[in-house]
Amino acid sequence: MKLFGFWRSLATFRVRIALNLKGIRFEEVSIDLMGGQQRSPDYAATNPQMVLPALVEDGQPPLVQSLAILEYLEERHPEPPLLPADPRGRARVRGLAQIVACDTHPLIVPRVREYLTDELALSEAQRLRWIRHWIDAGLRAVEAHLSRDRETGLYCHGDTISIADLCVVSQAVGNKFFDGTMDPYPTTAKIVERCLKHDAFARAHPLRQPGAPRPA
Amino acid sequence: MKLFGFWRSLATFRVRIALNLKGIRFEEVSIDLMGGQQRSPDYAATNPQMVLPALVEDGQPPLVQSLAILEYLEERHPEPPLLPADPRGRARVRGLAQIVACDTHPLIVPRVREYLTDELALSEAQRLRWIRHWIDAGLRAVEAHLSRDRETGLYCHGDTISIADLCVVSQAVGNKFFDGTMDPYPTTAKIVERCLKHDAFARAHPLRQPGAPRPA
Repeated sequence: MKLFGFWRSLATFRVRIALNLKGIRFEEVSIDLMGGQQRSPDYAATNPQMVLPALVEDGQPPLVQSLAILEYLEERHPEPPLLPADPRGRARVRGLAQIVACDTHPLIVPRVREYLTDELALSEAQRLRWIRHWIDAGLRAVEAHLSRDRETGLYCHGDTISIADLCVVSQAVGNKFFDGTMDPYPTTAKIVERCLKHDAFARAHPLRQPGAPRPA
Repeated sequence: MKLFGFWRSLATFRVRIALNLKGIRFEEVSIDLMGGQQRSPDYAATNPQMVLPALVEDGQPPLVQSLAILEYLEERHPEPPLLPADPRGRARVRGLAQIVACDTHPLIVPRVREYLTDELALSEAQRLRWIRHWIDAGLRAVEAHLSRDRETGLYCHGDTISIADLCVVSQAVGNKFFDGTMDPYPTTAKIVERCLKHDAFARAHPLRQPGAPRPA
């Protein structure tokens, strides 16, 4: 199994955690998102949207979009389950995941940050304000659910890890990339901290991947 | 079943189509997205993210996020199926749906358009360029998949309607709201046209909902 990703890609991070949790062997092919390699003809043939990640199994067409890939992995490698057994629980987990993967992260990805600079000529301060604004809106919504819902447990949904945790953790790590604090989201912060102690999350962390900057 | 929506909300449109296709009776409660009613304390208690749609069944906590709601409806009301039976087919359909629902539509929703005007003081022309840029990027990616993949049929995936069609149609209608043409996306345009002739799509169309402007 070949995962096209990049050390810093938060969407790839989610898939990497799932692969680790399920014990699936994979090879990661690095596509340099900061250098624009996702727009190379080679990668565009793999993923016409020219975004990360993409998952390729021998001789099969590539799979795209992190949430679609997570659902695929869940269907093909059901153990350990990353979705609850009951439809309402699954809907809650998917809803939490999508607050991040649909309504938060896509607003701060490289192509959007490039548009802000190249087309709108925003200052660095304005760009950072944009990034922080949308991360905050997403994490606030997640926190409102997690702090209120009785389904919240040691993790986002009960006491087992679900795709909601994968997505929330990815966004919390993204928040840190832009020097954000987790103080306004205490329930979320506790769950994220618990997840990051887990080996499958720790090994998948962006800063542990080849190409990441070494800690100072 | 109570659907919190708004005539113009493209995410609500997707759910409305699924409810129609599956023959599920529902009552729609209009939340005036242009007037800011999604930020009222009442609605925020239903959906802390203060976005549409939300689905409420008698006495149960609200379900949020359109794709999560679509998966829930699919699990609880499997006929007619809106996802293929095979995991790879499901992954392709979900991937196409998410190109729209994750990477395209969230960039042009009211809260983002408001930020562009209120915080960044963009001109109307700049704002329209932003909207068209991201709709075009999404539809181009969808077109690249649909025109290339052998799985494409009368609809996005074979000859039956799937959640990919629901999402692609919603974005094509959104494109029209901003006077965009479908000429650059001929394969997509043909599928959208076919879908919109279907009664379940036609009845769900934003311009057919209470509150929509009457045709001139």
